[in-house]
Amino acid sequence: MKNMNINTTISVLGPARIPSPLTSQGVTRDGKTRFMKDEYRISVDVRVDRVAGENKDSLLSFEQAGPRENIYFDPSKLKCAVVTCGGLCPGLNDIIRSLVLELYHVYGVKTIYGIRHGLQGFIPKYGHDLIELNPERVSGIQNTGGSMLGSSRGGQDIGEIVDCLERIGVGLLFMVGGDGTLMASKAIGDEILNRRLKISVVGIPKTIDNDIFLVSRSFGFDSAVDVATLAIKGAHNEAEAYPNGIGLIKLMGRHSGFLAATAALAQPDANFVLIPEEEILLHGENGLLAAVERRLALRKHAVIIVAEGAGQNFFEDKDIEHDASGNLKLKDIGLFLKTEISTYFKSKNIPISLKYIDPSYIIRSLPANANDSVFCGLLARDAVHAGMAGKTNLLISFWNNNYVHIPMDASAGQRKKMDPSGRLWQSVLESTGQNLLFNG
Amino acid sequence: MKNMNINTTISVLGPARIPSPLTSQGVTRDGKTRFMKDEYRISVDVRVDRVAGENKDSLLSFEQAGPRENIYFDPSKLKCAVVTCGGLCPGLNDIIRSLVLELYHVYGVKTIYGIRHGLQGFIPKYGHDLIELNPERVSGIQNTGGSMLGSSRGGQDIGEIVDCLERIGVGLLFMVGGDGTLMASKAIGDEILNRRLKISVVGIPKTIDNDIFLVSRSFGFDSAVDVATLAIKGAHNEAEAYPNGIGLIKLMGRHSGFLAATAALAQPDANFVLIPEEEILLHGENGLLAAVERRLALRKHAVIIVAEGAGQNFFEDKDIEHDASGNLKLKDIGLFLKTEISTYFKSKNIPISLKYIDPSYIIRSLPANANDSVFCGLLARDAVHAGMAGKTNLLISFWNNNYVHIPMDASAGQRKKMDPSGRLWQSVLESTGQNLLFNG
Amino acid sequence: MKNMNINTTISVLGPARIPSPLTSQGVTRDGKTRFMKDEYRISVDVRVDRVAGENKDSLLSFEQAGPRENIYFDPSKLKCAVVTCGGLCPGLNDIIRSLVLELYHVYGVKTIYGIRHGLQGFIPKYGHDLIELNPERVSGIQNTGGSMLGSSRGGQDIGEIVDCLERIGVGLLFMVGGDGTLMASKAIGDEILNRRLKISVVGIPKTIDNDIFLVSRSFGFDSAVDVATLAIKGAHNEAEAYPNGIGLIKLMGRHSGFLAATAALAQPDANFVLIPEEEILLHGENGLLAAVERRLALRKHAVIIVAEGAGQNFFEDKDIEHDASGNLKLKDIGLFLKTEISTYFKSKNIPISLKYIDPSYIIRSLPANANDSVFCGLLARDAVHAGMAGKTNLLISFWNNNYVHIPMDASAGQRKKMDPSGRLWQSVLESTGQNLLFNG
Amino acid sequence: MKNMNINTTISVLGPARIPSPLTSQGVTRDGKTRFMKDEYRISVDVRVDRVAGENKDSLLSFEQAGPRENIYFDPSKLKCAVVTCGGLCPGLNDIIRSLVLELYHVYGVKTIYGIRHGLQGFIPKYGHDLIELNPERVSGIQNTGGSMLGSSRGGQDIGEIVDCLERIGVGLLFMVGGDGTLMASKAIGDEILNRRLKISVVGIPKTIDNDIFLVSRSFGFDSAVDVATLAIKGAHNEAEAYPNGIGLIKLMGRHSGFLAATAALAQPDANFVLIPEEEILLHGENGLLAAVERRLALRKHAVIIVAEGAGQNFFEDKDIEHDASGNLKLKDIGLFLKTEISTYFKSKNIPISLKYIDPSYIIRSLPANANDSVFCGLLARDAVHAGMAGKTNLLISFWNNNYVHIPMDASAGQRKKMDPSGRLWQSVLESTGQNLLFNG
Repeated sequence: MKNMNINTTISVLGPARIPSPLTSQGVTRDGKTRFMKDEYRISVDVRVDRVAGENKDSLLSFEQAGPRENIYFDPSKLKCAVVTCGGLCPGLNDIIRSLVLELYHVYGVKTIYGIRHGLQGFIPKYGHDLIELNPERVSGIQNTGGSMLGSSRGGQDIGEIVDCLERIGVGLLFMVGGDGTLMASKAIGDEILNRRLKISVVGIPKTIDNDIFLVSRSFGFDSAVDVATLAIKGAHNEAEAYPNGIGLIKLMGRHSGFLAATAALAQPDANFVLIPEEEILLHGENGLLAAVERRLALRKHAVIIVAEGAGQNFFEDKDIEHDASGNLKLKDIGLFLKTEISTYFKSKNIPISLKYIDPSYIIRSLPANANDSVFCGLLARDAVHAGMAGKTNLLISFWNNNYVHIPMDASAGQRKKMDPSGRLWQSVLESTGQNLLFNG
Repeated sequence: MKNMNINTTISVLGPARIPSPLTSQGVTRDGKTRFMKDEYRISVDVRVDRVAGENKDSLLSFEQAGPRENIYFDPSKLKCAVVTCGGLCPGLNDIIRSLVLELYHVYGVKTIYGIRHGLQGFIPKYGHDLIELNPERVSGIQNTGGSMLGSSRGGQDIGEIVDCLERIGVGLLFMVGGDGTLMASKAIGDEILNRRLKISVVGIPKTIDNDIFLVSRSFGFDSAVDVATLAIKGAHNEAEAYPNGIGLIKLMGRHSGFLAATAALAQPDANFVLIPEEEILLHGENGLLAAVERRLALRKHAVIIVAEGAGQNFFEDKDIEHDASGNLKLKDIGLFLKTEISTYFKSKNIPISLKYIDPSYIIRSLPANANDSVFCGLLARDAVHAGMAGKTNLLISFWNNNYVHIPMDASAGQRKKMDPSGRLWQSVLESTGQNLLFNG
Repeated sequence: MKNMNINTTISVLGPARIPSPLTSQGVTRDGKTRFMKDEYRISVDVRVDRVAGENKDSLLSFEQAGPRENIYFDPSKLKCAVVTCGGLCPGLNDIIRSLVLELYHVYGVKTIYGIRHGLQGFIPKYGHDLIELNPERVSGIQNTGGSMLGSSRGGQDIGEIVDCLERIGVGLLFMVGGDGTLMASKAIGDEILNRRLKISVVGIPKTIDNDIFLVSRSFGFDSAVDVATLAIKGAHNEAEAYPNGIGLIKLMGRHSGFLAATAALAQPDANFVLIPEEEILLHGENGLLAAVERRLALRKHAVIIVAEGAGQNFFEDKDIEHDASGNLKLKDIGLFLKTEISTYFKSKNIPISLKYIDPSYIIRSLPANANDSVFCGLLARDAVHAGMAGKTNLLISFWNNNYVHIPMDASAGQRKKMDPSGRLWQSVLESTGQNLLFNG
Repeated sequence: MKNMNINTTISVLGPARIPSPLTSQGVTRDGKTRFMKDEYRISVDVRVDRVAGENKDSLLSFEQAGPRENIYFDPSKLKCAVVTCGGLCPGLNDIIRSLVLELYHVYGVKTIYGIRHGLQGFIPKYGHDLIELNPERVSGIQNTGGSMLGSSRGGQDIGEIVDCLERIGVGLLFMVGGDGTLMASKAIGDEILNRRLKISVVGIPKTIDNDIFLVSRSFGFDSAVDVATLAIKGAHNEAEAYPNGIGLIKLMGRHSGFLAATAALAQPDANFVLIPEEEILLHGENGLLAAVERRLALRKHAVIIVAEGAGQNFFEDKDIEHDASGNLKLKDIGLFLKTEISTYFKSKNIPISLKYIDPSYIIRSLPANANDSVFCGLLARDAVHAGMAGKTNLLISFWNNNYVHIPMDASAGQRKKMDPSGRLWQSVLESTGQNLLFNG
C-alpha cells in the first residue's frame, strides 16, 4: 500500500485541554506514562524490503489509539449515545457493555443512551424508546448473542438523525455497523460540521465478512469461523457416509472469501472453496462440475464450501435487486450450485447424495467467543478514548497488531479483498488441492 | 397399552447350551449372579391404578435384555456383521464400537464384518468392500460424527442380502436403522427362516425423530436436542433484534413432534411450536398468522418452531412423492410458512424481519453427546448378549428405564406419536402459551 | 424392592375443593382430560417375572405427579417461597425459573419470595434480604450456572425457620436441596404440623452424586457427566503423551459411584474406576498399584477415575471430621492416591508421569445442558401442581420414566447406591477390564 | 525495541539451487508470483513516530517466512523428522499434521519420521520406536488433543541426538517445543555445524504461557483462554452463590501473566488478577487480603485469578527446586493463597466460602480451537518452506501479523513479559478496578 493515497489525518473538534480523569493512574509504578500521544503512529505497511532504497520517512502510518492525557469533553456534562446497525454479529453486546463500563467507571460519564433498532431509533415516527444504559443494565449481556439494543437495516434521513442528537443533547455518538453504517456516519459527521455542532462521531466497524477496508480484523469473525467449522464437519460426515456423497456449505462473504477460506483451513475437510475474488468455471474440463466428478471417481465423496458472493457471474444483470440497506441482493449461489450439481450428475446418470447446509443465522446470532470478547473490549475502550479526546469522524481499527484511528472517509465505500496470491488463499489451494480449477 | 394385542414373545434359533464365556465373571463378589433369565420381564405399563381391581397377572411385559448364562453360538467359529442404514444420527459410531468391543473382548468373536453403505453393501453390483472390524479399527471412532461404515437409503433385494450372508458365512447380523430398516430386517429374518439358516438378526432402532413404536428413547435424540437449542437461541436473538422480528426454525420430525417439543422446553424461547400430531390452522382468527400478528403487536417479536412433518394438510394429494427409502417425500413446511408469513404481513402492510433457520444436517452429523454415548454403549452390549444367546428377529429397546427385547413384528410398521394430552405436549403449551391456536 | 417396607402415602393439608385454574384448558381437543387423579400410581418395581405367581395387587407404587382437577390453595391469596440449599448443581436456575413461571402464569400466584443463601435466608441475624420473584426477574437465568438465590451449607434452627414462614405469611414452600435439606424439610413439616399451620412443604431433590433414595435421576447429573468427560479426555491425552503416563481424575460421589461410572462409559478412556460401593485393594498382587504397574508394562499408560468417597477404608477413624452441613468430611482420596502411586513407582525405580485432575467446581457451577433443562422444567411444574393441591412433606421424584410423589420420610436419611451386580457397574467392568482388581 | 541489538540474520546450509516443486503453481492467474524473497522483511517495530526524525533505514526487521523459488534439499532423497517436547499444548497434532501434508503433498518428501516422546525418542536406551508418518497416518489427528508423537520433559545428550539424526539419515528436523527445547535446538544446530553435517533444524515455538521472546503469539494460547473462561465462570457462580463467597482460580503462567490477563478480559468476572510481572502485597492496608476484605464488605463476593508464577517472592530461596526439564519448580501459589486467605478471615472471625479451581491439565490437553488450528497450519507450512530452502537454526514466529524467521539465538533464553504500562495489563486494571493493590 506504500503508494496509495490514503488520508490518515484524524479530525478533532477542538483542542483537548481537560486533564484526563485517568491522570492519577496515568503513571505506572515503573514511572512510565500509559498515555498515548497523537504523534505515536503505526506503520501501514510492515514490509521493509532491503531491496529498494526507499525513503522510509514517507511511510504511511495511522494514528495509534489509546487514552490521551487531555480530553475534550467534560465528563460530568457529557451525554453519550450508542447505536448498533445492520446484520447481527457475535460481539455486539460485548461492545455495548465495554463502552458503557469505560464511559461510566473510568471517565465518569453518567448519561449514556442506547438507541433502539439501529438508525430507526433516531427517527420519531418509528416510536422506539431510548434505553438508559448503566453498568447494572449491561451486566452479563456479553453472554448472550444478538444486540441488546436491537438493530435494523437500511438508511434513514441524515437531517432527522442529527435533529435527534441535538434534541437529546448528545455530544458523543458511537456507531457500530458495517460499510453502509460507516457511510451514514460520515454523512452525519458532515451535517454536524455544517450545523457547527460539537458532536463527535466514532465508528466501530462491524462485518461478519471481515472485509472492511483498512481494518485487518473485524470483531465476530473469529466466532463465525468457530461455528462454521461445525457445519463443515457435518457436511464432511454426510459426504463420507453415502456413496458419491457431496456436502455443500454456504458461508457468509458477499464480496470477499475470508470466512470461507479461514473456515476451510480451520476444519480442513473441504475439497473445493469458492470465493467472490475468484471467478468460478462451472462447465468444461476445468470447471467445477468436472472436477467434482473426478474427485468422486477417485475418493467417493466431496466437500464444497461456497461464499455467498461467489459465482455472481452466473446471474443475469436484469436480476439485480437491492435490499433495505441498499446492498446488492445477491442471487443464491448455494441453491444455484445445488441445482447445477444435481442436474449435471443426473444427466451423466451418476447417482449422488447431495446435502446442502446453510448455517447463516446460527453463526450471526451466537455470543462472541473468548478471543472476540477480549477484542471487543479493547476496541470499545479505544473508541471511548478517541471520543473523549474530541476526535471525530474516525473509526477504530486493528492494524499490524495495534489499535489505530482511521479517518472515516479513508475506509468507507471501499472493500478489503483477499489477495489471490497471498498466503491465506494460497494455503487454501494447498489444503484443498483445487488449484487447477481456476486455471481456465 | 394394557389392552393392546402386542406379541411379546422372542424367537430363538434353538436351545442355548453353551456356557457363556462370561461365566467366570458371572458371580459378583456379593454372591449374586449377573446373568439375566428369560423369565425376567419388564412391565409394559407402569400405571397400576388403585381404582380398578384389575388382574395384574395379565400385565403385558417385555423380556428383559442382558447377558444370558448359556449362549447359542460358539464364539470361536462365529462370524458377525454390522450394517448401518438410512439417515445419519449421532451415536452410530458409538454403537459400532461397542458391538465390536463386546463381541471381541467379552465373547471372543474375532471375525466381525462391517458392511459398507447400508443395504447396498450386501449387493455385489455396488462393489462396496467389506471392512474387517476389530478393536484397533474402532478405537476413537465415537469422537467423530457420521458412521464409519457409511450408509445408504432405500431397500435392496432381500434374497440377494441373504445370499450375501450365506456366502460370507455370517451367523449373527446387527442391523442399525429406522422403521424401513426394521421392516427389511423382518423380511430378512423370514427369508432366513425359509432357507432354514441359523442366522440371527438383531435390530438396533435408530431414528432422530424418536418415533419408533415401543421404544421410549432412541439414541442420538438427546444430542439432537442439544444442537437444536443453538438454533433456537439464534432465532430468538435475531427475532428480538429487529422490529417485528420473526425467527422460524425447522426441526426434524416427519411423523412426530418429539424433537420440536423437547427442544422447545430445553431452550424456552419459542412462542409457537407446530407438530405433525396437531393440525395447524393458518388463516382466520384462531390461525397461526393472526396469532403471530397479535404476538408482534404485544411483544414485537416471535419465535416459531416447526417440525418438518407438521402442516402436511396444506399440500395437495397430487403432490405426493416418495424418496429412495420409500418414505413419503414431505413438502417443505418451513419454506411454505416462510412464504405464507411474508405474504400475510405484506398484504397487511406490516413490515417484518423474518429469519429462517434449517439446521438439519448439522444436527444429524455430529458426534453423540455424553448421555447418548452411554446409552449407545448399553444398547450395543445388549444387542450382543441377545444375538449370542441365539435370539433373533428382535430389536433392543429402552422401556421404563430398562433395556428389553421387542419382537420385530411388534414394532415395525407402526409409529410412536406424542400424546396431545400428555405431559410433554401440555408442558409445551404451558411454556409457549399457544393453547388457543388449535381450538378451531 | 418388592418386599421393602416403604411408606408411599402422601400427606395433604386438607381436602382440595377449589377448581384448578387450569380447568378451561383441562380437556384437550380429543376429549381427554389432562388432570391426574391421586389414584393414578406408578409401580415401584417394573420387573414382573413370570417365574413367580406373585400377588400383583401388592405391587408397591408411588402416586403419580401432575396437575389435579381441584386445588387446595386460593392462588389470589397465596404467598409462596423458594429456597436452594447446599452445594451448587447445574439446573438450579432452571428450577427457580420454572417454579415462578408456573405459579405466576398458570396458577395466577403473584407473590413469590426468593429466600437468599439457603436456610440462612430464613434467619434474621444473617440479614439477607428477600427477593420478590416474577417472570421478568427470572427471564434468562437458566442460561447462567449457579443459583440466582444463592445457597449456604449447614442447618439452621427449625423453629426460627417456621417463625419466618409465619411472619411473611408463606403458604407454600419449595425447598431444593440434598439429603440434609430433605431432613430439614421433614423437620420443618413436623413443626408446621405441631403449630397447626397450613403451610405446604414440597421438596425438589438435588444431588450431583445422583444418590437420593427412591429418585432414579437427579437434575444436574447429566450435565455433570458432560463436563466430566472433558476431564477424562484431558487425562487420557496426558497419559498417552508421556512414557508411563498416568492420568488420575477425581470426580464427585461421596457415597456412590454413579458419576464416576457413568462418565467412564461416556468417555471410555479409563482403565480403572474406583467407587465407594467397592472397597479398594491398594497393595498386593490384586491391588490397584500392581494392576497399574501391569497396565503400564503392557500399554505404557493408564487412566484412573476415583470417586471422592472411594477408599475411605484407608483413613483412620480418628481423622473423622464433619462440615457445616453435618456431612462427614471425607479424606481426600485423590491426593492420597497421587502420593501412594508416586511412592510405589519411586520405590520400584520406575519413572512415571502422573497428572492429577480435580474438576469439581467447574462441574458444579455451569449451566444445565439441554436434557437437564427439560427435566428441571418438568420437575418444577410438578412441584407446583403438588403444592397447589395442598400436598405436603413430599418430594418430586422421577421413577420408571414417570414423575411421582414420594413422602419425605420414605427418602430422607437413606442413600441410593450402585448395585455392584447391576448393569451399570458391570458395564464399567467390561469397558475397563478391571474386574480382577476387586477379587481379593 | 528500536535500539535493541538483535541478530536477525538467518543461517543457511548453502545456496538453494533447486527449483521449488511449487514452481508450476508459483505464478497466480493475475501474474503475480507467490514466492517470497529473502529480501522481503517485516519491521520489528511498527511505531513510526512523527516526533523523531529517525533514520528509517536502520529499522530492525525480520526475514519474512514463506515459500522460496529455489530450495536446497532434493525432496526425492530427503528424510525429515518431527519431534514434540515438553508440556502438552492445544495444537500439537495440527502442527504435526500440517508438516506431514506439506512435506508429502506439496514438496514430495515421502520419508518423514515421527520421534516418540520428545528428546527421549532420539536416545536408544529408552527404546521408543520411530513412527513413519504419512497423510493417512495423520488424518483426523487434529480433532484430538495431546500429541500423537507423545512428549517428555528434560534434556538429553546432544551428541547422542545428533548421532541418531546421522544414523537414520535425517536432513531436516522440526522441533516443536518451549524455551528449553529451543536451547536444545540451538545446541543441536551447533553440534551439526561442528560435525559439518547438512542437517537443517527448524523450531516451532510452543508455550501455553505465550512468553517466548520475539514471538507475538504462540499456538494453543487462544484455546487455553477459551477453556480458562469456563473456570472463571464457574468460580464466579460459586462466589456469588455463598455469603462471602470467594472463587480462586490458578492459571498457567510461570514467568508471565498473559493467560491470566487475557482470560480476565475474555470473561470479565474477576476482581483481582495476580501476575508474575507485578509483585504482590499480601498484608497491610494495600495488600490483597485487606482488599479482598473490603470487596466482600461491599459486594459480598470476590473472584481472584492467580498466574502460577505470581507471588514467588513469598517463598524462601532455600525451597528452590528444579524439574526434569531444568525449569525452576515453582511453589504452589494457588494453595498458598488458599491457606493465607482462609487464615486471614478466620483470624478476623469472618466466615467465608472459598472455592479453589485449578484447571491446568484440562486446558493443556484439549484440541486446538478453530483459530489455533488455522494458525498451526500456517506455522507448520512456513516451517517446511524454511527448512526446504536450507535455512537452519531458526524458529518460525508470528510478528506484526506476518510469519517471520527468527534466528534461534535471538530468542532462546529470554522471556517475553507483559508490559505493566501496556494496553493489555492496563485494560485488566480498568476491568477489575484493582489498581490500588500494587501502589504500595
